[in-house]
Amino acid sequence: MNKDIPEFSLQRMPVYLNYLRTLPDDGNYNFISSGAIAQALGLGEVLVRKDLAYTGCAGRPKVGYPRIELISALENFLCVNDAKSAVIVGAGGLGRALLCYGGFKNYGIELACAFDTDPEKIGTEVGGKPILSVEQLQESCKKYGAVLAIIAVPASAAQQTAELLKKAGIKAILNFAPAQITACDGVKVINIDVAANLAILASML
Amino acid sequence: MNKDIPEFSLQRMPVYLNYLRTLPDDGNYNFISSGAIAQALGLGEVLVRKDLAYTGCAGRPKVGYPRIELISALENFLCVNDAKSAVIVGAGGLGRALLCYGGFKNYGIELACAFDTDPEKIGTEVGGKPILSVEQLQESCKKYGAVLAIIAVPASAAQQTAELLKKAGIKAILNFAPAQITACDGVKVINIDVAANLAILASML
Repeated sequence: MNKDIPEFSLQRMPVYLNYLRTLPDDGNYNFISSGAIAQALGLGEVLVRKDLAYTGCAGRPKVGYPRIELISALENFLCVNDAKSAVIVGAGGLGRALLCYGGFKNYGIELACAFDTDPEKIGTEVGGKPILSVEQLQESCKKYGAVLAIIAVPASAAQQTAELLKKAGIKAILNFAPAQITACDGVKVINIDVAANLAILASML
Repeated sequence: MNKDIPEFSLQRMPVYLNYLRTLPDDGNYNFISSGAIAQALGLGEVLVRKDLAYTGCAGRPKVGYPRIELISALENFLCVNDAKSAVIVGAGGLGRALLCYGGFKNYGIELACAFDTDPEKIGTEVGGKPILSVEQLQESCKKYGAVLAIIAVPASAAQQTAELLKKAGIKAILNFAPAQITACDGVKVINIDVAANLAILASML
């Protein structure tokens, strides 16, 4: 699902969800207008209405969106209630930081384990998750029913890792290695190059 | 500069630069066509030509772009040769991983130091960079001439950190805290929510 929705709209859905979840349950936010959401998030009101229309939750004129319903609609949209299993390849600094990060649960994502090639790391645990050998990648991904993966290996190993993950049945990859992953048919990839993002920001100054 | 260029085009510039830098200097890649670049990166050829036109480097019909010139044009576009100083706030797992990451240099970005509130971390070094007290943030940002910052603190401290950075003269922020930073006039922000990105990928399956 969600294949035909503009990428930028898709990227804002978690932002709306996070914001609505932080509002207090004190009765003052049973309804919230697109204008209020737009202002809080620094977005245009028309844009907010357009984005939220994709969730199927309808705002009521002069009242706004019923907040709890809108949260549910966004959660459905993002499949938060479908438990999904993810693995990390690379248990260096970044991989370890992600293993300890609790935020995946908010989206129904369970980190199962990480893989590494370093014998000193294999067999240990980080954040309560086991570090396994890359040689166990295929069987472990199947065992955990993993469909998502995070690549946190050096740039030189990124493409090879993506191909290995594809063979193991992974359907979507978040790539932190500073190397573009290409030609991995049937697998969705988002590349996140931290240094490049900082460079883009700098070039806009 | 680069204010009027579409965000998606801007995001692809480091991808082109990385790719062109990896090609061997064996004489076979003195010129490269937009078609070859498009194929290697899984992009459309028209899109590649449109993006690269922003750099001011002209391709020659039936020959392609002079590779070294194109690299220089992309480097100029991304201000790679202007040394820029960056700081990190939050020396937890992610902050420490970033301090050890060597990729910033490729874009002319020098990490100066990190800030934390934990007395056990303050005064130590990670990746050869000092961890300083958040109380030293203002004076240290000025001392290092820092204009860029990475936020790697818990969500609850993100907005406050952004305001502190603004006061310290920071012009652009890459925010890894899973909380949208808003209303920070005059400061450019890119939010990177790792769990949200994974959720977006999952929702597209």
